[in-house]
Amino acid sequence: MIKEGDWVKIYFNERKWFVVRAMKGRELHTDEGIINLSDVLKAEYGGSVRTHLGVEALISKPSLEDIVFRAFRRKTQVIYPKDIASIIVRAGIGPGSRVVEAGTGSGVLTAFLAFYVRPNGEVYTYDISYGHQKIAKKNLRGLGLNVNVHFIIGDVRKTIHQKEVDAVILDLPDPWNAVKNVASSLRGGGRFVCFLPTYNQVEKAVEAIREAGFIHVESVELLERRIKAKRGETRPEFLMRGHTGFLVFSTKP
Amino acid sequence: MIKEGDWVKIYFNERKWFVVRAMKGRELHTDEGIINLSDVLKAEYGGSVRTHLGVEALISKPSLEDIVFRAFRRKTQVIYPKDIASIIVRAGIGPGSRVVEAGTGSGVLTAFLAFYVRPNGEVYTYDISYGHQKIAKKNLRGLGLNVNVHFIIGDVRKTIHQKEVDAVILDLPDPWNAVKNVASSLRGGGRFVCFLPTYNQVEKAVEAIREAGFIHVESVELLERRIKAKRGETRPEFLMRGHTGFLVFSTKP
Amino acid sequence: MIKEGDWVKIYFNERKWFVVRAMKGRELHTDEGIINLSDVLKAEYGGSVRTHLGVEALISKPSLEDIVFRAFRRKTQVIYPKDIASIIVRAGIGPGSRVVEAGTGSGVLTAFLAFYVRPNGEVYTYDISYGHQKIAKKNLRGLGLNVNVHFIIGDVRKTIHQKEVDAVILDLPDPWNAVKNVASSLRGGGRFVCFLPTYNQVEKAVEAIREAGFIHVESVELLERRIKAKRGETRPEFLMRGHTGFLVFSTKP
Amino acid sequence: MIKEGDWVKIYFNERKWFVVRAMKGRELHTDEGIINLSDVLKAEYGGSVRTHLGVEALISKPSLEDIVFRAFRRKTQVIYPKDIASIIVRAGIGPGSRVVEAGTGSGVLTAFLAFYVRPNGEVYTYDISYGHQKIAKKNLRGLGLNVNVHFIIGDVRKTIHQKEVDAVILDLPDPWNAVKNVASSLRGGGRFVCFLPTYNQVEKAVEAIREAGFIHVESVELLERRIKAKRGETRPEFLMRGHTGFLVFSTKP
Repeated sequence: MIKEGDWVKIYFNERKWFVVRAMKGRELHTDEGIINLSDVLKAEYGGSVRTHLGVEALISKPSLEDIVFRAFRRKTQVIYPKDIASIIVRAGIGPGSRVVEAGTGSGVLTAFLAFYVRPNGEVYTYDISYGHQKIAKKNLRGLGLNVNVHFIIGDVRKTIHQKEVDAVILDLPDPWNAVKNVASSLRGGGRFVCFLPTYNQVEKAVEAIREAGFIHVESVELLERRIKAKRGETRPEFLMRGHTGFLVFSTKP
Repeated sequence: MIKEGDWVKIYFNERKWFVVRAMKGRELHTDEGIINLSDVLKAEYGGSVRTHLGVEALISKPSLEDIVFRAFRRKTQVIYPKDIASIIVRAGIGPGSRVVEAGTGSGVLTAFLAFYVRPNGEVYTYDISYGHQKIAKKNLRGLGLNVNVHFIIGDVRKTIHQKEVDAVILDLPDPWNAVKNVASSLRGGGRFVCFLPTYNQVEKAVEAIREAGFIHVESVELLERRIKAKRGETRPEFLMRGHTGFLVFSTKP
Repeated sequence: MIKEGDWVKIYFNERKWFVVRAMKGRELHTDEGIINLSDVLKAEYGGSVRTHLGVEALISKPSLEDIVFRAFRRKTQVIYPKDIASIIVRAGIGPGSRVVEAGTGSGVLTAFLAFYVRPNGEVYTYDISYGHQKIAKKNLRGLGLNVNVHFIIGDVRKTIHQKEVDAVILDLPDPWNAVKNVASSLRGGGRFVCFLPTYNQVEKAVEAIREAGFIHVESVELLERRIKAKRGETRPEFLMRGHTGFLVFSTKP
Repeated sequence: MIKEGDWVKIYFNERKWFVVRAMKGRELHTDEGIINLSDVLKAEYGGSVRTHLGVEALISKPSLEDIVFRAFRRKTQVIYPKDIASIIVRAGIGPGSRVVEAGTGSGVLTAFLAFYVRPNGEVYTYDISYGHQKIAKKNLRGLGLNVNVHFIIGDVRKTIHQKEVDAVILDLPDPWNAVKNVASSLRGGGRFVCFLPTYNQVEKAVEAIREAGFIHVESVELLERRIKAKRGETRPEFLMRGHTGFLVFSTKP
C-alpha cells in the first residue's frame, strides 16, 4: 500500500507527530526511540509501527497542509493556512485556473496553488532569487506538485509574460510597482490579491490599485482564535497570533 | 462572446452591481434605469451597456463568489466566504476529492465544494428536507455545477452510504449524533469539519469527536476585519461582523 | 428621597429606558404613554411610576455612564466606555489627580475625569471652540461635576498653562503638535494618553512622543465583544463595533 | 524628596526596569550591576543613579499599575489592566464608593479599588483563604492603600454582611451561588460585576443573575491588541493575549 517515497504521518500523540517520506534504509530519530522507515513500507495507512524502544506510533496519510507546514524546507517567512485559504477561494482559484504568483519564497503558497489548479491549470511563479526557487522547486517536486508549475526567475515589477490569467497573487513588499503589469496580465474579471504585513503597504497598494481602475477593492485581515473545548470549561485559548498580514483583494473590470 | 444563459456582472459602481444571466427578452430594472438583457448578448466581457436612461454599466465575468452570494435563491442562513475558504482548504478538499456534506441548505457550500472537486471528484450532499434540496439543485444547475453532485434526501445521523471519502462537512445542529457514521465513512487521514454557531455545540461536538478516536481536533473561529484604506486616514472599519460560527476540524487516524 | 433636579432612570424593559431629571411640571413622552415627572418626585429609587396608559416603569438611580451616554447633549463624535475606562485607569487618574484634557468636545470624557479626580483633584479642559465648551459646561453642570473643572478656550498646541500635572489626555487630530507643551506640563512619571482613530495618526504621534523622550510608549486598541448568554445557546453576538480608536500611552521620565 | 520606603522606578531601558522601595542598606542586583538603594534616597524623581559598574538608570515615580504588576507578591492568577479598568469605570466605582469584593487573591484588584474609593469610600474584600489575605494585606500595606480596606475571611456564598453597597465584584468560580446575597447587599441601582474565564460560567452566571431580577445584564470580553508603530512599518504586533476572561455586568433595579 505504502510505496517508496510516499509521504506518511507518524503519530505518537497531539504534541508529537512527524511527516516524512517512507524510504528504505532511512531512520527517524524521536525521543520515543528510532523508527526504521523501511518498517513503514511494510505497514499500511491506518496501521502502526514501533520504535526500537517498543513505543507504538500510528501511520496515516498526511494532508497537503501537514506536508507543507511540517516537511517543507523553508528559508522565508511563512504564510498561514487561514490566509492561504482565503487567497485561493476568494480569488476564485480552482481546477483549470491560470495563476501568476510572486515571490515564490519557499513555495508554500505555490504548493497550494499547484494543488488547486490541477489537472489542467497552470501556476507561473516568479522570484528574483535563484536560491529561493531552488528550495521551492525541491519542495514541490517532493510532493509531485511541480508538474503544472512554471518557475520563472524574474521581477514582476518589470514584466509579466503571461496574458489573460485568472488571478495574480503578490506576496511582495511593493506590489504597487507591479500594478500596471498585473492589469495587463489579467483577463477581465480576473482577481488580484496582495498579501501585506503593514498598514502603510495596504494604504499604498490600495491607492495604486484603485488608480489602475480595479474594482471591488477590499482590504481585510483574518484573526484566527482557537477555542479550548472541554466539558464545562470551554474558553478561547490564552495564546493567539495577533497578526499575520493583510489581504487586499480586487478585480480587473 | 457572451452566450444565452451566461452569467454576467452588470456594474454601475461599488454599491450598485448585479449578477444576472444574459437572456433574450429579459430586463433588469435598476434605479439607474432598465437594461435590456438582450443588449448584454451583443456586448463582450470588459465592454458596457446602457440603461434606457442612458446610464452606462460595465459588463464583466462574475466570480463563483459573486454568483453564489448575489444570485442564489436562499431559504436558509448563509455561511460566509471566510468560513467556506477555511473549510475547503483546511479540509484538503481539491480536484478529485470525494466529499460528503450535510445539510445541503440552499447549496451555497455545495456550489463551492462542487467547483473544487472538479473534474473527477464527487460531492454527496444530504438534507432531510426535500424543499431545501429543490432550491439547491436549481441553484447549482444554473451554474453548471450539478454534474458531480449527488443530492440525497437523508439523515446522516442515521446512515452515510459512502465509504472511503476524503472529507465530511457537517453544518448541522447536532453533529455529535453523526460522529460514528462519519468515522466509518471517512478514509484514514480523511478530514471531518463541523460548522457550529454556539460554544455549547462546540463543546459537545469536540467531546464526541475525541471519544470516537479522531486526532488533530481543533476548534477555531475566524474574525474578518475590514480595513478602510485611504491616504493618511487608514483605519479598521467601524462595522464588523462579530460572529458567524465556529469550525471544528479533525482527522480520522 | 428623590428631589427636584435629581437624575432618575425610568425603566420599562431592556430596550426601553430613559434617563431624565425629576422636575415638577415636566412630562416624559414614551410609546408606552406619558409619565408626569412630578410623580417621580413622590416615588423612591426602587419604586415605580405609571404612564397615563397605566404601564408601569421602574424608577432607579442611574449610573454616571447612564447619564452621560443617555442624557448628554452631544455635538461631537463620542468616545466609548471601554476606551474611557482604559484611559482613566491606565493613566493612573484618580482622587486628587490634576489632569489636562483637550478637546473638551461635548464633555463626555470630561465628566468621567471630573468624577474620578474628586474631591481634591482638578480637570483643565481645553477646546478651541466656544460652542463645544458651552454644551459641555451645561452637561457637566447638570451632573454637579463642574466644580473641579476649569474650562479653558485655548489651543494646547500653542500653550498649556498648568505645570506638574499628573496626566494629559488628548483627543485631537494632531497631538504631535502638542507634544512639547505636554512634556513641559507633566510632572516626572506623569502619563500622556492620545486617542486616535487612524493608523497614520498613531504612527506620527508615537514618533513625536518617542523623540520627546517619553518612555513606556504603548499603542493599543481595545475590541469589545459581546456574548449572548442563553442556556445551551451561548455565542458571541453577530453585530460588533469593529473600531473606535487607538490609544497611545506614554510616561514622562 | 524621596523618602525611606517610597516606591521608585529604576529605569535602564524599555526591557529593563524595576520597581522597588528606597531603603537604606538595601541593594538591587541587575545584570547592569548593583544599585545601592541608599543612593536612591539622595536622588530625586527625574534624576538618576549609577550601578557599581557605572551604568546610569533613571529614577522616576512609578504608577499604581507599575507597582501592582511589578512589585506585588502574587500567589494567584492575575487579572489584567484592561479588565480592571473596565470593572472599575463601568461599575461606577469612584471616590466615596462602598464596594464588596471576593476573592481577595493577591490583592491586585483590591489595590485598584482601594485607590479609587479614596478618601471616603470603603472596600470590603472577602476571601476564604487566610493565606491569600495575608499576602494581599502585606501588598496593600506597602502601598498605603490598606486604610479603607476591610479584610474579611469569609464566604460570600454564605453571607455578605454589608448593606446598601454601591458595587459587588466577584472573581469566583461560582458566582451564581452568591447572587442572592449580592442582591440583598447592593443598593438599588448598584452594580454587580463577575469576572469569569469560561463560557460555561458566563452562561450559568447570566441565568442566575437574570432570575434574581437584575437588569442591564451584559456579558463582554475585551481583546487588547497592541500596535507596533514605526514610520512606514506600522502593524499590529504578532503576539497577542487571546483570552483573559469575560466580564458580566448587571444592575440591581
